[in-house]
Amino acid sequence: MSKIVVLRMGHRLDRDKRITTHVGLVARAFGADGMILANIDDKGVKESIMKVVEVWGGDFFVETGVPWRKAVDDWRAEGGLVIHLTMYGMPLDEALNKVRDRDLLVVVGAEKMPAEIFDLSDLNVAVGHQPHSEVAALAVFLDRVFKGSELKKEFKNRKLKIIPSEKSKKIEIDR
Amino acid sequence: MSKIVVLRMGHRLDRDKRITTHVGLVARAFGADGMILANIDDKGVKESIMKVVEVWGGDFFVETGVPWRKAVDDWRAEGGLVIHLTMYGMPLDEALNKVRDRDLLVVVGAEKMPAEIFDLSDLNVAVGHQPHSEVAALAVFLDRVFKGSELKKEFKNRKLKIIPSEKSKKIEIDR
Repeated sequence: MSKIVVLRMGHRLDRDKRITTHVGLVARAFGADGMILANIDDKGVKESIMKVVEVWGGDFFVETGVPWRKAVDDWRAEGGLVIHLTMYGMPLDEALNKVRDRDLLVVVGAEKMPAEIFDLSDLNVAVGHQPHSEVAALAVFLDRVFKGSELKKEFKNRKLKIIPSEKSKKIEIDR
Repeated sequence: MSKIVVLRMGHRLDRDKRITTHVGLVARAFGADGMILANIDDKGVKESIMKVVEVWGGDFFVETGVPWRKAVDDWRAEGGLVIHLTMYGMPLDEALNKVRDRDLLVVVGAEKMPAEIFDLSDLNVAVGHQPHSEVAALAVFLDRVFKGSELKKEFKNRKLKIIPSEKSKKIEIDR
């Protein structure tokens, strides 16, 4: 089973707290193994995500403060692919057949990214060529990689589980 | 052609500024016709989204300050379906065949939603049953509704257009 880790770049304390938390929660919910928060050590964001892991299960990890160049270099040194999600990249459909069964470091950033990331990445991939959201780009990218199966993923060691319902909130308490 | 409008509920000034802007940009980029920001008149959010429309084209609209009950009632009175995206709802795959060719009001909210929305909606739909992000839920929902074609949508009256590229930023200036 190949490994998928999200590298979140360009995070600014306070301003990006909620967006970066959403990036982490999407990474987890859509089947990634973990998130690296580049350069910044934001304990609040990590805590928010780890609280969700504690309640809803799985073994998603968050690392903070890793210099982004190091994260990218380490990943490539181990033979993994680095995929930079950017609206300037190649269309998603064309990229998908190049990423199957490979370990993927999925790089998502803020508005201003260092120019080198375009070169250092194996693929620059666009989830549409319109400005929208790194949260959305990550979700749709992972949804295509896992072909929708991620939405049915069961998480181990969960305390709560939702029972799908047409008209109300139903939660099962596991322990 | 059926109409799709996003109803953003539970927006809090300042705190949700960036998330709600992402919701609006995703709505536009993934093919919705407009966004209604329920109850709150946040001019900053509207401005950010309309700036993107001005540069990147299309005729996406943003309405603010509409009471959410009124938005829902009006939509249903005109024969449209109200779809509430919530992790408690029915699985996305099961919902999709019920929404084809209908006018859709897609309701996305924050953590705390009024309980009535579960009853008032025609369908409560889960994009996965894990906590993640309304931005991601909206993107994946629209991606499934449009079957990926939204990622190739051309926007009219644009000033800029991206030329997909494997290694750099290429932008075409239309006028």
